[in-house]
Amino acid sequence: MRVAILPNRQVNGVDTVLKNVCEKLNSLGIEIIVSQDTAFPLQDCEALVRDADMVLALGGDGTLIHAAKHAARYERSVLGINCGHLGFMAGMEAEDLTALERLTEKELTVSHRMMLEVTVHGAAGDRVLYALNEAVLSRGNPSRMIRLSVQSDGKPVASYRADGVIVATPTGSTAYSLSAGGPVVDPTVNCLLMTPICPHSLHTRPYIFGENVCLTLHPESEGRETYLTVDGEEAVSLTCGDTVTVRRSILTARIVQLRPTEFYEVLGRKLTDR
Amino acid sequence: MRVAILPNRQVNGVDTVLKNVCEKLNSLGIEIIVSQDTAFPLQDCEALVRDADMVLALGGDGTLIHAAKHAARYERSVLGINCGHLGFMAGMEAEDLTALERLTEKELTVSHRMMLEVTVHGAAGDRVLYALNEAVLSRGNPSRMIRLSVQSDGKPVASYRADGVIVATPTGSTAYSLSAGGPVVDPTVNCLLMTPICPHSLHTRPYIFGENVCLTLHPESEGRETYLTVDGEEAVSLTCGDTVTVRRSILTARIVQLRPTEFYEVLGRKLTDR
Amino acid sequence: MRVAILPNRQVNGVDTVLKNVCEKLNSLGIEIIVSQDTAFPLQDCEALVRDADMVLALGGDGTLIHAAKHAARYERSVLGINCGHLGFMAGMEAEDLTALERLTEKELTVSHRMMLEVTVHGAAGDRVLYALNEAVLSRGNPSRMIRLSVQSDGKPVASYRADGVIVATPTGSTAYSLSAGGPVVDPTVNCLLMTPICPHSLHTRPYIFGENVCLTLHPESEGRETYLTVDGEEAVSLTCGDTVTVRRSILTARIVQLRPTEFYEVLGRKLTDR
Amino acid sequence: MRVAILPNRQVNGVDTVLKNVCEKLNSLGIEIIVSQDTAFPLQDCEALVRDADMVLALGGDGTLIHAAKHAARYERSVLGINCGHLGFMAGMEAEDLTALERLTEKELTVSHRMMLEVTVHGAAGDRVLYALNEAVLSRGNPSRMIRLSVQSDGKPVASYRADGVIVATPTGSTAYSLSAGGPVVDPTVNCLLMTPICPHSLHTRPYIFGENVCLTLHPESEGRETYLTVDGEEAVSLTCGDTVTVRRSILTARIVQLRPTEFYEVLGRKLTDR
Repeated sequence: MRVAILPNRQVNGVDTVLKNVCEKLNSLGIEIIVSQDTAFPLQDCEALVRDADMVLALGGDGTLIHAAKHAARYERSVLGINCGHLGFMAGMEAEDLTALERLTEKELTVSHRMMLEVTVHGAAGDRVLYALNEAVLSRGNPSRMIRLSVQSDGKPVASYRADGVIVATPTGSTAYSLSAGGPVVDPTVNCLLMTPICPHSLHTRPYIFGENVCLTLHPESEGRETYLTVDGEEAVSLTCGDTVTVRRSILTARIVQLRPTEFYEVLGRKLTDR
Repeated sequence: MRVAILPNRQVNGVDTVLKNVCEKLNSLGIEIIVSQDTAFPLQDCEALVRDADMVLALGGDGTLIHAAKHAARYERSVLGINCGHLGFMAGMEAEDLTALERLTEKELTVSHRMMLEVTVHGAAGDRVLYALNEAVLSRGNPSRMIRLSVQSDGKPVASYRADGVIVATPTGSTAYSLSAGGPVVDPTVNCLLMTPICPHSLHTRPYIFGENVCLTLHPESEGRETYLTVDGEEAVSLTCGDTVTVRRSILTARIVQLRPTEFYEVLGRKLTDR
Repeated sequence: MRVAILPNRQVNGVDTVLKNVCEKLNSLGIEIIVSQDTAFPLQDCEALVRDADMVLALGGDGTLIHAAKHAARYERSVLGINCGHLGFMAGMEAEDLTALERLTEKELTVSHRMMLEVTVHGAAGDRVLYALNEAVLSRGNPSRMIRLSVQSDGKPVASYRADGVIVATPTGSTAYSLSAGGPVVDPTVNCLLMTPICPHSLHTRPYIFGENVCLTLHPESEGRETYLTVDGEEAVSLTCGDTVTVRRSILTARIVQLRPTEFYEVLGRKLTDR
Repeated sequence: MRVAILPNRQVNGVDTVLKNVCEKLNSLGIEIIVSQDTAFPLQDCEALVRDADMVLALGGDGTLIHAAKHAARYERSVLGINCGHLGFMAGMEAEDLTALERLTEKELTVSHRMMLEVTVHGAAGDRVLYALNEAVLSRGNPSRMIRLSVQSDGKPVASYRADGVIVATPTGSTAYSLSAGGPVVDPTVNCLLMTPICPHSLHTRPYIFGENVCLTLHPESEGRETYLTVDGEEAVSLTCGDTVTVRRSILTARIVQLRPTEFYEVLGRKLTDR
């Protein structure tokens, strides 16, 4: 068994955790390969994942999401070791690495999470991105709302003057969508969640669509900057006439859960935390 | 082919529509059996549905829901003929009955809608009700909040001091749940939607659960009246110690759609209508 | 100096607090008169308040509100001694009665709170009630929404199909109005806050009106029970054709604050408390 | 009587309206001075306003706000002539200029609107801006939330991880604050309205503060871009350590209303408009 370790060295204390994890895995006789990249996102992520049987992500939820999307291409499972604030997705905490002994068990619990395929259709061709949390279409200029319309399988759903719109997976329902007023969706429900961001109308409700729907987002504000952001990563600037389609990806993220999930307990603690 | 006609004679203008529908079906050579009940809910509903191949409900969404729940027991499809305000669920409008000619077609479009099995567990035994829209646990006294907690498959999800809580189907997401702040859920997504009613805390988000979950509602306010209401029908008074479980029913409502559904267009018109 | 003590003996532990308060005031040479009523609301409240220079309310926020409304008629100040959960309005906690020594100080800090005059205009004449928190017009039947419209100084503001509507003072903004989605209003801002309860439309925003406005609430649902509730006290049943007007009262509640107010800190603790 | 005319030539159709307004005022014997600036904001605004007895703003609500803030310095009243979409603030519509005849009346109805003094306290000194609608502190990077805390007269009120925070006047309550979930505040209520933008917590309620409060906004996200935007005008980039204070300005905007205000009717039409 060979495990790829992907540490986010931008997170405080990750170096110590990395050292401890390596020692522990060595003592268990597990072969390890470790990312050498000190920046984040990791440039050697893809190569490491491909050559491993399983992936460990050291950092917060953002690190895990980054690792899980790469691992999805090679059908690898990812275990998140949480080194920061309370996380929704990590399978264990950095403080106690005993649970790593279970890595060699045959029957690990793996949560399969749907992902989104996000395509920018532009004059120069298409560009495809993958989301585990959400795709966000938003204004670039802090002073200006954008105008956009949304279609589901080609039929009009809603149009907004707003700061933007979010299309999230169930996994992403507890991230930015929640801030914008969206509901909490259990990760086992396969669906697309659309949440407008600060719409200037009373037509403000989040929508839950079936997993087989293709949503098309049309920015309609000529001359105003519009950006596409996927999972909080670097923003893509859209030009006038570009459209964005969002649909379920054929890729699935595999998140290892070493403890029985207490999703609603974590949620309660996370959200009342000030 | 024999069609059971279930008119809600409490709705203005239904008598005229009933007369026109009977004439139209007669001219098409379709056998009809008509409810003789002038009150609502109809007492002879069950018998009529059992003896028919298809059901027509004349009235508003409430009439259709009543008919569809009875029809679900016998796997009959229901066509709603809308006689009132704009409805989400009716398959056609009373003004133009031409579309009834399509009833004899082999390939009618039928929308299958999940239902809820709602069980009151009391000292004197259990009582089971069925919901197509929602089950509501609410205070009986207009001056007093109730306290209640919710479990999903035996695990704690949330506890509230509130006016009550709604557990809705996707069909019910545009009914009372929407008033309480819930999202719009496409009828094709199978899930349970829980929406608290005026909770006195900041823990107020709606939750979307998987379709296989069993939710348990525990009223915790001793000495305060608590009621269970299913689809806006007559309220059931709960006594201290009663609990309510809500899960997906094995029954499915079958709603005939004669026109292509324009769910989001109807929604927009319905909700901006003052 | 003579102090009227109004204990809510329905609240756990009030008897002990009462005994300690009496001893403390005796030791300070303050004359006391104590309500003998063991039920709540207190029947001898009015007489005691009239004969005292200051009022002590022993219980929770509800007890204090009850006392403060009676005290407002005689321009007496009220100090709340909190015996229950975290309260917004109490001037001191029951655990440490040392602060009572300050009662004899000349310059107590008194927070003046606006009240509402709530008038039911019925066929049999008018009935006037006073609110320190809020007036609520709500459905009596758990299965049915009511229809109502609101006017401000005779001009239409909004009409709703809803569970009801709240008209609150700033003091009441952290009570039921908050549950229904209303904003937090600082007690020093004089205004009327209107918050609809579960409206079935997208027209759902709370409204802040000037303090000199007269709001008229028109229930429009014939044959459906509608109730008026003031400060969570006993509900008044409205009959068809009744209207309710709400305006600022000429009475003002006077709440003694022995510690510097930490309104926003209390709010944060109160609302994140599960 | 001399009237300064401030047209926003970026708005479609303003040139024609300008021509008609000039003719009408000439025919009434009113002296006019007209901005020659074809861009917007107008560079000659200040000089024109100073030399006139009254100001006409031709365009939408944005044009009126721009003019009213300049006019406030010289205690001039502004009449907005609406040339675009439905506006909240315009005193008349461009289609029918007959009402201009009333300009010479002694007793025009003028609505006094409170304004905000917004001060950026930076290492290089202070910078003061004025708002008639709102001051917005927001993230510059579409991918990143900012962290900020708010104090009222030096006491902590709330801290957020969010897209930003809005401090609005009552006039601004129907602008961006409404999009972010804020209540509608009648323009006659003097207060400051604080509305967080997409906060990632459950601590999300808008707050209404008294008019004499000084709010301090502390951006706490090192290395993340934060912007201050006032009334949707050009954004000011904040650097780490800058704070922003917002308090009531001693300036007051004076808005002429030629028709009796139908604030709630305009609101209803504006917000249900898709």
